[in-house]
Amino acid sequence: MSEKIWNVYLSGEIHSDWREQIEQGVAERGLPVKLSSPVCVHEDSDNCGVAIFGEEENSFWMDHKGANLNAIRTRTLMREADLAIVRFGEKYKQWNAAFDAGFAAALGTPYITLHPKEHDHALKEVDGAAAAMARDPKQVVQALAYIIRGEMP
Amino acid sequence: MSEKIWNVYLSGEIHSDWREQIEQGVAERGLPVKLSSPVCVHEDSDNCGVAIFGEEENSFWMDHKGANLNAIRTRTLMREADLAIVRFGEKYKQWNAAFDAGFAAALGTPYITLHPKEHDHALKEVDGAAAAMARDPKQVVQALAYIIRGEMP
Amino acid sequence: MSEKIWNVYLSGEIHSDWREQIEQGVAERGLPVKLSSPVCVHEDSDNCGVAIFGEEENSFWMDHKGANLNAIRTRTLMREADLAIVRFGEKYKQWNAAFDAGFAAALGTPYITLHPKEHDHALKEVDGAAAAMARDPKQVVQALAYIIRGEMP
Amino acid sequence: MSEKIWNVYLSGEIHSDWREQIEQGVAERGLPVKLSSPVCVHEDSDNCGVAIFGEEENSFWMDHKGANLNAIRTRTLMREADLAIVRFGEKYKQWNAAFDAGFAAALGTPYITLHPKEHDHALKEVDGAAAAMARDPKQVVQALAYIIRGEMP
Amino acid sequence: MSEKIWNVYLSGEIHSDWREQIEQGVAERGLPVKLSSPVCVHEDSDNCGVAIFGEEENSFWMDHKGANLNAIRTRTLMREADLAIVRFGEKYKQWNAAFDAGFAAALGTPYITLHPKEHDHALKEVDGAAAAMARDPKQVVQALAYIIRGEMP
Amino acid sequence: MSEKIWNVYLSGEIHSDWREQIEQGVAERGLPVKLSSPVCVHEDSDNCGVAIFGEEENSFWMDHKGANLNAIRTRTLMREADLAIVRFGEKYKQWNAAFDAGFAAALGTPYITLHPKEHDHALKEVDGAAAAMARDPKQVVQALAYIIRGEMP
Amino acid sequence: MSEKIWNVYLSGEIHSDWREQIEQGVAERGLPVKLSSPVCVHEDSDNCGVAIFGEEENSFWMDHKGANLNAIRTRTLMREADLAIVRFGEKYKQWNAAFDAGFAAALGTPYITLHPKEHDHALKEVDGAAAAMARDPKQVVQALAYIIRGEMP
Amino acid sequence: MSEKIWNVYLSGEIHSDWREQIEQGVAERGLPVKLSSPVCVHEDSDNCGVAIFGEEENSFWMDHKGANLNAIRTRTLMREADLAIVRFGEKYKQWNAAFDAGFAAALGTPYITLHPKEHDHALKEVDGAAAAMARDPKQVVQALAYIIRGEMP
Repeated sequence: MSEKIWNVYLSGEIHSDWREQIEQGVAERGLPVKLSSPVCVHEDSDNCGVAIFGEEENSFWMDHKGANLNAIRTRTLMREADLAIVRFGEKYKQWNAAFDAGFAAALGTPYITLHPKEHDHALKEVDGAAAAMARDPKQVVQALAYIIRGEMP
Repeated sequence: MSEKIWNVYLSGEIHSDWREQIEQGVAERGLPVKLSSPVCVHEDSDNCGVAIFGEEENSFWMDHKGANLNAIRTRTLMREADLAIVRFGEKYKQWNAAFDAGFAAALGTPYITLHPKEHDHALKEVDGAAAAMARDPKQVVQALAYIIRGEMP
Repeated sequence: MSEKIWNVYLSGEIHSDWREQIEQGVAERGLPVKLSSPVCVHEDSDNCGVAIFGEEENSFWMDHKGANLNAIRTRTLMREADLAIVRFGEKYKQWNAAFDAGFAAALGTPYITLHPKEHDHALKEVDGAAAAMARDPKQVVQALAYIIRGEMP
Repeated sequence: MSEKIWNVYLSGEIHSDWREQIEQGVAERGLPVKLSSPVCVHEDSDNCGVAIFGEEENSFWMDHKGANLNAIRTRTLMREADLAIVRFGEKYKQWNAAFDAGFAAALGTPYITLHPKEHDHALKEVDGAAAAMARDPKQVVQALAYIIRGEMP
Repeated sequence: MSEKIWNVYLSGEIHSDWREQIEQGVAERGLPVKLSSPVCVHEDSDNCGVAIFGEEENSFWMDHKGANLNAIRTRTLMREADLAIVRFGEKYKQWNAAFDAGFAAALGTPYITLHPKEHDHALKEVDGAAAAMARDPKQVVQALAYIIRGEMP
Repeated sequence: MSEKIWNVYLSGEIHSDWREQIEQGVAERGLPVKLSSPVCVHEDSDNCGVAIFGEEENSFWMDHKGANLNAIRTRTLMREADLAIVRFGEKYKQWNAAFDAGFAAALGTPYITLHPKEHDHALKEVDGAAAAMARDPKQVVQALAYIIRGEMP
Repeated sequence: MSEKIWNVYLSGEIHSDWREQIEQGVAERGLPVKLSSPVCVHEDSDNCGVAIFGEEENSFWMDHKGANLNAIRTRTLMREADLAIVRFGEKYKQWNAAFDAGFAAALGTPYITLHPKEHDHALKEVDGAAAAMARDPKQVVQALAYIIRGEMP
Repeated sequence: MSEKIWNVYLSGEIHSDWREQIEQGVAERGLPVKLSSPVCVHEDSDNCGVAIFGEEENSFWMDHKGANLNAIRTRTLMREADLAIVRFGEKYKQWNAAFDAGFAAALGTPYITLHPKEHDHALKEVDGAAAAMARDPKQVVQALAYIIRGEMP
């Protein structure tokens, strides 16, 4: 009988290669994981709304159209996820990552946060509702290997 | 027959007097609103966990105990809220405010964001799922008066 | 022990006095009913968004701000309702009334439609999911009297 | 690992070829989309109830039987949809389209409306709860390409 | 602080005085119980639909209008109940009582069945999902006294 | 892209060949339907509990063990069903069929009843919550063909 | 406007006076808390089923009748609780306390465990899903005072 | 059309070979069952948290990290299960098994307990909410064969 495929949603920071590291780690170990994520091309993510549905003079509505188009993708993938990884990078506010964490918490979907130590205090509520907190994408891959196959690092 | 009491949860920034402004505005208009909020004494909010359940050497677990104790209050009040107001101030990351917004969105609880223009782009996902965006606590009071009694400003 | 208060939401047409008729009928019979409804002052309902949160050049966004502000009220009241009455008048498209009916159906909240015979065919899906269809506000009052107290007309 | 198939439900108007345009656009781009819709043969959709379960003298019950039979199909497909497209044409009241929008809103299923500018004001509540508003089926296809694959137009 | 009021819905047979016996027992013991039930005047329960919403030639639709009007009452009360008592008498099929039991089971609302021994085998599925099975209304009152106040018989 | 498979649960009477008629009709038309049902060997359905988990002296507990073992099957299949068909035969009380109808109603799963005219009045509540009422298994097959493929009889 | 009353359910061990300590602490501080608990008279809790619904020869069914009668009380109170306190004493297995913790976790109801250090390892899963872990009823009272009024110890 | 695969989660004791017995029985009968379970290597289950996410000085937090990592696996598998088997062995407290039973009960997922007679009284609440109670893994296999295929032992 076929192994369960785990849906893992990768939320948050889009400026470093943490998603690629997880993807590579998952591939190397041959884990039955289907990774998903928001559209990570920053410019497209910003412009998609007006590019498709028409220009806006007011930047607020430009952002609004983009954000709600992106949300069709992200919330659908989040609802299907068995697990979310929520990444906070060193720069930027990444309120959308915290939003996703709150969304997951209300759905009862477990999530693992991934962030440097310097954010520990500011992220205490987000970490408090998390199933685990990781510092490194490698730990996320190890956690997946353990969760799915019981493999220890 | 008695008027419906509206439960309104005030989430986010604890460094300015926006909650007091809303409270005062609601009182002046005599609106049937029950305001609730997290514990807003910053130091207590940080220390409550260890003060009650015992010291921790590791600051991560100190934060963890505090955050999860606070969450008993905040998530219960959020679940009972008819509406949340989510405030992002000029300083601090306030990831917990964004977390609350995501939590409300997943519950289907409407929320109004309250923030200065400079955060518009960074908050576009949080604003995208909001019922409205306000710049000033006065607008929130006006919105409550309209929502509850149909009073125009 | 006190009698149960029934929350009844009155959705739809705002150009005739059907709400007043129901209100009066309920009062005459002394039924324990708490009626609620959208803001029924047409102009306010249209302008509330921009009047409170600021002007918009684009009429689409003006409507958007108003509609979403109104929705805070209407969906909260709908979620609390034991029963909705959904009225379609002779003129206007009243898509919002049909939207409310679909919303109620998905929540499992029963609703009674109220409309003239000429709309029967066009409203067949909305009537199909309804608990009953009435022609006259008097029938709605009679239905309430029966539902709550078992009183026959 | 296989790509996620997106279930997209096409609700509303049955008098123009908008569904075919979307179907063709999806096929041309090779998007992993499974389109579904109500039975779009107007006459069958009206007569199915009595044709299968027996004649009715009263046209209200004829409509009722048809509407509730159609609802088995439409609500099941709607519940499975990741996204709904809700189309309002130039003629007809299409209350069933607005009903579907309300149903989707209550389920938390995102939907995109598709309608000409002339309906903007009358559809403001339906648009207010929508993830996006489109004027042309081509925009819907572009939105699907972006949502699923991040492809810009 | 005031004692919790328990909502208890009395479903099923309307031809014997079992509801009155429970009501009297509850009153004698002064239990904080709010009893509710369907409209128990058989003739009204049958005729209410057509009496209020207009005559039907076809008896099926007459029954349909009545049943769906009654359901507004019964399902609302059932949804609010902490506990249902489902009574099967010696005569009649009482499929509506079994329907109510299934409805309660799916909601997670506990129910106690009340029926003579001769129905044990035919009611095994209904009893299987019940929290208890009673033979006599007195036992129901004793159970309420125990559940609410811990009073033994 | 593969056609949607419809899960259809066949509840109720086990003494006539109505399930076989539906199965044959579905096969003849090549409909993408997965039929499921309770264990229909009457004796096994009665004895399964004690045969597997050990004898009982008291027939009530023998029935109880069987009913709850059967319920693991039936409620799981019901929860997965897109549609249930609920059959009431000419004899027997079949309270379990009515229980299943109530269970489906609370889940929001549509069902079609199948019964002779003589039961119309006694089944009015069960029919009232049904999507349709059929007299003959052939009608059920026709309904499936219409629901799934839009085929008229 | 009146203060929110917090419903707190006290689950678990019935052999020490921890409930009384919490009750007294709550009273001394005048906290708006409504405490509830299972029936704590051990003998009654064991015998209630057979005392009310009739004797059983088999002790398994005697226990079964009692457990399911008690569950009407306990699960109703649990569902209404804003917070549960789950106490594991020094003796006895108290599987019902762990069951209640799992039940609360699935409902999303926060709970605080209360147990001596010696059980830490064996209770790690139950503590892992808890909002906090206390050693002493005094800490529970302090936690309530903080949660409800922001009072520090 | 392919047979339904039943997801069965095996919760509880990890010190005897009961899971292997069920696995073997299922294989011998060729039942379409997908078994799942927690990580059953006791040492790994205890150490996984710190091995992956970093050491802890305090054993409570070591356990906490492990328990919450394991919970990602166990609660996901539990949520997907059609049926859970909850095993209590002769030794150890196995509060996690009781926790899982409570979790399943709140989700409406049926479960079968598996334990020796000596635990009957202490497990009465856990058994009370169970669909069945078994003494031997063979009975579980027989139950699966009956539930899925109607095969009698």
